[in-house]
Amino acid sequence: MAKLNPNYDKLIAGYLFPEIKKRVQMFMESNPERKVHKLGIGDTTEPIPPTIIKGLRNGVEKLGSRDTYTGYGDELGDKRLRESISEFYWERRINIDIDEIFVSDGAKPDIGNIQSIFSIDSIIAVQDPTYPVYVDTNVITGRTGNYNQEKNGYEGIIYMQCNEENGFFSPPPKNHADIIYLCSPNNPTGNVATYAQLAEFINYALKHKSVIIFDAAYSEFIRDQNLPHSIYEIENAKKCAIEIHSFSKIAGFTGVRLGWTIVPKDLVLEDGIPGKANSLWKRRQTTFFNGASNIAQEGGISALTPEGRKKCKILADYYLENAKLIKHVLEAKGLKVYGGVNAPYLWVKGPKGIKSWDFFEKLLNECSVVVTPGVGFGPSGEGYVRFSAFGHREDIIEAVKSIQENLNV
Amino acid sequence: MAKLNPNYDKLIAGYLFPEIKKRVQMFMESNPERKVHKLGIGDTTEPIPPTIIKGLRNGVEKLGSRDTYTGYGDELGDKRLRESISEFYWERRINIDIDEIFVSDGAKPDIGNIQSIFSIDSIIAVQDPTYPVYVDTNVITGRTGNYNQEKNGYEGIIYMQCNEENGFFSPPPKNHADIIYLCSPNNPTGNVATYAQLAEFINYALKHKSVIIFDAAYSEFIRDQNLPHSIYEIENAKKCAIEIHSFSKIAGFTGVRLGWTIVPKDLVLEDGIPGKANSLWKRRQTTFFNGASNIAQEGGISALTPEGRKKCKILADYYLENAKLIKHVLEAKGLKVYGGVNAPYLWVKGPKGIKSWDFFEKLLNECSVVVTPGVGFGPSGEGYVRFSAFGHREDIIEAVKSIQENLNV
Repeated sequence: MAKLNPNYDKLIAGYLFPEIKKRVQMFMESNPERKVHKLGIGDTTEPIPPTIIKGLRNGVEKLGSRDTYTGYGDELGDKRLRESISEFYWERRINIDIDEIFVSDGAKPDIGNIQSIFSIDSIIAVQDPTYPVYVDTNVITGRTGNYNQEKNGYEGIIYMQCNEENGFFSPPPKNHADIIYLCSPNNPTGNVATYAQLAEFINYALKHKSVIIFDAAYSEFIRDQNLPHSIYEIENAKKCAIEIHSFSKIAGFTGVRLGWTIVPKDLVLEDGIPGKANSLWKRRQTTFFNGASNIAQEGGISALTPEGRKKCKILADYYLENAKLIKHVLEAKGLKVYGGVNAPYLWVKGPKGIKSWDFFEKLLNECSVVVTPGVGFGPSGEGYVRFSAFGHREDIIEAVKSIQENLNV
Repeated sequence: MAKLNPNYDKLIAGYLFPEIKKRVQMFMESNPERKVHKLGIGDTTEPIPPTIIKGLRNGVEKLGSRDTYTGYGDELGDKRLRESISEFYWERRINIDIDEIFVSDGAKPDIGNIQSIFSIDSIIAVQDPTYPVYVDTNVITGRTGNYNQEKNGYEGIIYMQCNEENGFFSPPPKNHADIIYLCSPNNPTGNVATYAQLAEFINYALKHKSVIIFDAAYSEFIRDQNLPHSIYEIENAKKCAIEIHSFSKIAGFTGVRLGWTIVPKDLVLEDGIPGKANSLWKRRQTTFFNGASNIAQEGGISALTPEGRKKCKILADYYLENAKLIKHVLEAKGLKVYGGVNAPYLWVKGPKGIKSWDFFEKLLNECSVVVTPGVGFGPSGEGYVRFSAFGHREDIIEAVKSIQENLNV
């Protein structure tokens, strides 16, 4: 008798976004005359710049002609794209070999699948709050216990509390963790880890022989010159860290699907064989995956040209300007606002200690603004909401105006 | 201390194709004057038809304009595409609801990932020989024992021997299996299961409460009207079978990456809750995956229009004509040739009982023709090689000529 994977039942019912969708739907049905301003989802809204469109178009045209048609590509990614990614790192004096680069169909699948190369009894540590996929994928694979309603988290996972007291970045855990997920700029807090903070984690990882999974999907929003974009800017990181990156937010590729993962050959795990983690991930990808779309990869190559990079920066600046507008109005209302400077997310504390979902309802009812309740990102997210700065400027301006006029703090 | 997943070490060293690549490389270096004819890999070579290119192009152009730009799509796939797939089935009188269709980035990832919804102690049965991904992904996840050199297979897997005696289709196993992988037309034998043969498996599955994972990636090559294209053409299949399909071979999308999986809501597993398997796969995909590329999906929609379907058929006919030419010359040499009529693969028995790798070497050395050793597809593949009919016509004609002139049987 075929049995289902029992771990799925451990997942708390209803992923965050379906629940939000349901509540917004209800609100819209009860208030058909009101325009809803959606600042909940971290999805790009601005078109892909022409220079990158040209690359994508070129990718399509090649497939229509016998002389340029290609079938299966290199499963690790088009060599030209991996060379461009290597150069992207080299600009920051980081030396990444093209054999350490694995092109993917986006950061999310790699974040979910990277655990395949690790032992099932690995102890996981995550920032709290953070992107739920780190936790959920480990729950499904069976690395956690049940959900504990009281502590609002799963048994067996180390939650590293990020709160006002520690500036939304926790030091490494006191106990031993095998795999540590770090996201910087963090989704949802918008907080960026400093060189010193990352160095502390690297020291921890080297001491404990742990591996850091570093999610750099939002690094192109960092404008402060004193903050690291990549974990490999810190000494010894290649011995203990895997970095996952994405074209989604760089180039507006959320729907196009393209990303990459770096598994350094210097990464040494318990067996002491250098390059073993790199070769296992290669085996994983060549067995379960068949490469990213060749069309998307042509677009990725264009996005990493000097001209493409310039246009991507303009795109990121656009969303950062949105963030500034949102930050301004919320602060004018006397709210505590974090993030939103080197990240497209703002982490906003509810007034008078109200809970995340209550603040969500308040913003929806008073201002017709949809945000994401912070508690959906982990127990320490309680009391906060996340504002996303992705949106058309005029929509952001409307939302800001509605907050200004209607929010009763 | 972070430990690696020990199951990777169970995998027998060197995936089939890298080994072939190495040997061909060596041959080419020793024989620089000889042109090598590659009939080893099942990769499409002909350009994507203009009507489908138009769809892909449209997908790109939409992303360049603010009014038509889209970010994250529906994680289950564009509704229009799922409707087209539903119609594709309806042509064969199969009623598939769009909520039962999950669009993916190709058959291979779904084949690898579908096991996530099943219990880790599930007993796996595979056809022998068959596509190695069914086995390897279960080895990595830990559902098998070690590789047994003597029996040329993994402990704990049920190998269903397909050989000349049973017409290359094994009846269901005598013992209990929880999950049964069936591929029809089978890769590598090119054999297509009949209605009666599939019905026998469905009876087995209903009796044992097993699940059949039916890989239909090559179904569009079936020309015999008396053979089923989909397992759902057989009664009660929706109660026990998941079907995985792909645009790779239909539309030349091996590099574009697009496929789909059907998880029927009628599929009932041990818990007896209808729709549970469907909802677990939905949860798996929304957690680990972020949808197929929106550009590829626009191409998929075009491929399933009446005009697109017509062009896809011409594409498949082209490869089938190649298969005919290969079959003809091999039979003229007195070899036993199976498949290649309703499939793009020919399954050819080595002369005088020689082994797969010896036949591989013989074809390479005598004719400069590269094939795939049958033993790479499972223990019962020993003594056979697989010819792939994917290739430009003139290359196939050259290969056929070389066999005709040089093969010494």
